[in-house]
Amino acid sequence: MITFETHPDRYRHWKLAFDGSVATLSMDVREDAGLKPDYKLKLNSYDLGVDIELADAIQRIRFEHPEVHAVVVTSLKERIFCAGANIMMLRESTHGWKVNFCKFTNETRLAIEDASDHSGIRFLAALNGICAGGGYELALACDEIYLVDDGNSAVSLPEAPLLGVLPGTGGLTRVVDKRRVRRDLADFFSTLVEGIKGKRAVEWNLVDKVFPTSQFKDAVAKRARELATRSDRPGQGPGIALNPLNPTVTENEIKYSAVTLTLHRDKRTADLTIQAPTGAQPSTPHEIFAAGDQFWALRAFRELDDALLRLRVNEPEVGTIVVRTEGDREAVLAIDRTLAAHQNDWLVREIVLFMKRTLKRFDLTARTFFAFIEPGSAFAGSLFELALAADRSYMLHDDNEENVIALSPMNGGPLTMSNGLTRLQTRFLGKEDHVDEVLAHEGPFNAAEADEAGLVTFAPDEIDWDDEVRVAVEARAAFSPDAMTGLEANLRFAGPETMETKIFGRLTAWQNWIFQRPNAVGDKGALKVYGQQGRPEFDWKRT
Amino acid sequence: MITFETHPDRYRHWKLAFDGSVATLSMDVREDAGLKPDYKLKLNSYDLGVDIELADAIQRIRFEHPEVHAVVVTSLKERIFCAGANIMMLRESTHGWKVNFCKFTNETRLAIEDASDHSGIRFLAALNGICAGGGYELALACDEIYLVDDGNSAVSLPEAPLLGVLPGTGGLTRVVDKRRVRRDLADFFSTLVEGIKGKRAVEWNLVDKVFPTSQFKDAVAKRARELATRSDRPGQGPGIALNPLNPTVTENEIKYSAVTLTLHRDKRTADLTIQAPTGAQPSTPHEIFAAGDQFWALRAFRELDDALLRLRVNEPEVGTIVVRTEGDREAVLAIDRTLAAHQNDWLVREIVLFMKRTLKRFDLTARTFFAFIEPGSAFAGSLFELALAADRSYMLHDDNEENVIALSPMNGGPLTMSNGLTRLQTRFLGKEDHVDEVLAHEGPFNAAEADEAGLVTFAPDEIDWDDEVRVAVEARAAFSPDAMTGLEANLRFAGPETMETKIFGRLTAWQNWIFQRPNAVGDKGALKVYGQQGRPEFDWKRT
Repeated sequence: MITFETHPDRYRHWKLAFDGSVATLSMDVREDAGLKPDYKLKLNSYDLGVDIELADAIQRIRFEHPEVHAVVVTSLKERIFCAGANIMMLRESTHGWKVNFCKFTNETRLAIEDASDHSGIRFLAALNGICAGGGYELALACDEIYLVDDGNSAVSLPEAPLLGVLPGTGGLTRVVDKRRVRRDLADFFSTLVEGIKGKRAVEWNLVDKVFPTSQFKDAVAKRARELATRSDRPGQGPGIALNPLNPTVTENEIKYSAVTLTLHRDKRTADLTIQAPTGAQPSTPHEIFAAGDQFWALRAFRELDDALLRLRVNEPEVGTIVVRTEGDREAVLAIDRTLAAHQNDWLVREIVLFMKRTLKRFDLTARTFFAFIEPGSAFAGSLFELALAADRSYMLHDDNEENVIALSPMNGGPLTMSNGLTRLQTRFLGKEDHVDEVLAHEGPFNAAEADEAGLVTFAPDEIDWDDEVRVAVEARAAFSPDAMTGLEANLRFAGPETMETKIFGRLTAWQNWIFQRPNAVGDKGALKVYGQQGRPEFDWKRT
Repeated sequence: MITFETHPDRYRHWKLAFDGSVATLSMDVREDAGLKPDYKLKLNSYDLGVDIELADAIQRIRFEHPEVHAVVVTSLKERIFCAGANIMMLRESTHGWKVNFCKFTNETRLAIEDASDHSGIRFLAALNGICAGGGYELALACDEIYLVDDGNSAVSLPEAPLLGVLPGTGGLTRVVDKRRVRRDLADFFSTLVEGIKGKRAVEWNLVDKVFPTSQFKDAVAKRARELATRSDRPGQGPGIALNPLNPTVTENEIKYSAVTLTLHRDKRTADLTIQAPTGAQPSTPHEIFAAGDQFWALRAFRELDDALLRLRVNEPEVGTIVVRTEGDREAVLAIDRTLAAHQNDWLVREIVLFMKRTLKRFDLTARTFFAFIEPGSAFAGSLFELALAADRSYMLHDDNEENVIALSPMNGGPLTMSNGLTRLQTRFLGKEDHVDEVLAHEGPFNAAEADEAGLVTFAPDEIDWDDEVRVAVEARAAFSPDAMTGLEANLRFAGPETMETKIFGRLTAWQNWIFQRPNAVGDKGALKVYGQQGRPEFDWKRT
């Protein structure tokens, strides 16, 4: 079973060092410490385990080190920055593993950009040696890229010519859409195994600057200090510690403090339940800081994030998830109001951004989600985002009309999807008036009101409820899992596309196709044959 | 060998009728007239042959019938509008055939929307009976959808639940992005085999109106006349005839009047050459009308369009295409100036829109294109779009500096890509000043100037030329064809995404993935098992 929690004390592949406002995150992959013993992580190549540490490091810098305003991403290996995803690992992996691996690495790189765009942490990739494939894609996620000019070190995306697959972590998209490398130059670059170095790399905007070896370290340090001056983060720590989640894991359940994931493997379904906060809750930034990682909003969403990641990787056959909430709706709304009122506080901002990223992880999880809204539930404000993110929501229209949902300011802006819109804006695409109207609604919505306002999919009455929701889940769980993945990936992201949605839509979908093709993964496919004797044999038909 | 030219006199599946400003295009598919004898086209289901006629009909309405301002799309079969793409045909088809079939049908539906958006021809889908899958996707491409309310006729997208694949012709995208059906309702609808009818179909905006059988025809006729009043097309004909292209087809060559496609199947390459006009050219709308389909701009682009379609379907292994132009550059520029000056003329507008669509077809062709710009070439204005559309361009830097390219007003606006930008805007993404600068440049660019301005990829000198271009083509033709398709599909469409790019990026890429998966096309896959004994067996892993 793969788990996603780690801590710098236990990192095997990265070193995290702090010097005032600048942190340095150095890759130093241990060859023999891959997640599986089948491959050696040579030349700073990586597998999911390496990327889990990277994701953890970025998260901790955000929460535990508010004094950090710039991060240098570099390598401790001589003349090697990073050789990208480990090819032997990819070759031996199932299709599903490859897809989930790429999804997680993509989310991690987008989290770097999120920290830069919204948290005031700038990233400088200091490429002290060869930087290939996923290594360059990591650099592309940083704000600036410095490359050593030693006559040897180049940036490259050799996946297509060498392995017959695409660079799978946003490289093609970022090259043309973020760095705005001309598409014809990008075409040439992406088919050039040896990559591009020196002055040409700068001219084509593949990197920002190159420096001779003798000047490289100083130039990086100087630039990192400059980047660090542009932040609105606090000048000093401390931050808050992100302690272990310590879920109770049994055969069929992962139970956290506020989140429970119960698996029904025989039915290929699961129940995911989130508890509203209980007891007194912080209402000022000071109190939130004092509560630290035990503050419900952070704790519950960290648990949800962890549950989603475990589900994706460890339970591939569990395809249909019923989402429920329980507890005090008013307590959720009170926390939402606190969060909305104090978004200028660095920690509140980080918590809200974390909630946003977790909900995006939900959007991007290739499982069906149905929200069941029943009496006693707490689908209010930020928790109602789960119902909006679900593929459908079923709300019991109870005779007493006590079953309600509610909105908060958190539904009106901070928790945007990858497409740049809120879930309400995406739901009511082009109907901004209606979005404003539901947000202005006073008090909760009962089932009839929620149905009328289009906030839930269906509102069966007590007579129909049991049958309707049972049949819905059973029917869903019986459909082709691939068709459901494709369906959801198309319907969930109405409206504008962004670089982020392009990476998960266009790029990922093409990569998944290629990962399925005999030209890559057949016995004579390029990915299979690489590093072994013989050359790939292709079916030459273009499609 | 599949050919794409046809004429209403030879249609087997559609009837085209005219009544003043309203044309009626009625589907009446001949069961036994499929492209292959392996399947029967029951219930107005279609194969590529049916769609070729549809594409032809729309083209002819545009050019041959300027007096038509609205088109009713309906069926002559009792209680059946259209059952969608023929499932037996899909089941028996290769992956490549399915992909090319979907691409062509998508282009045809987008051509309907192009006619509505830009030509002043409105489309009314008159659904006189069941309308499933691709049938509903055709309706979605129309401006408005009327459905008969007979207690039986429904619209549906049953592909996912029934066949384990996606609706492949833009259905999912148009439901949420064009008709703005709520994503949760769209999710429910897209998993409901029997579809949705009557009042609910209107409430969910799946159709615009429903009418009882007794009122249906009148309501359709009345609405079509209303829609026809909103056009800026001429009040009367005649238009111009689109005569057969009559290429000379030999073993290794398709030779038209201005376009030649020469195949080198052993090398998996082809040469595509376009001749500039010769002799006197029309310079007024009146003269263009008189020249009709022999006017170079229309003739050359019709030929190019036909060559691209034949290449896609008949020559799947020919993966790398060298594009050349020949002749009088000034003649192309003169025609461009004429076209740009008279875009308010209905025929000029149609010709320019046709050029735009053909260039989009080029962008969407899953082959590598390299433009070779050599002395004697005519890469000017609209023909230079081919160099901009190519994955790379190589321009010989001749000692005499006689090899030149040139821009025209046609590079500055009318020939937009699917992403809504011109090819220059896409090439110089976010650098509008540079776009303006190159467009303002007086006279042609020699190789050094073109290279400096970023208008060509490489400008080798005479010593390097032969080796460099030879190696470029050979290397390209040796890469995995799937990786090249994915690479190009990502790099060609930098910048914003539109509904159109979403259909060809996100939707198509996911569909191609699903079309490759055992859950659809394996021996027990849903698409294979459909209509036969037994139920599909799925690998339940979600990816």
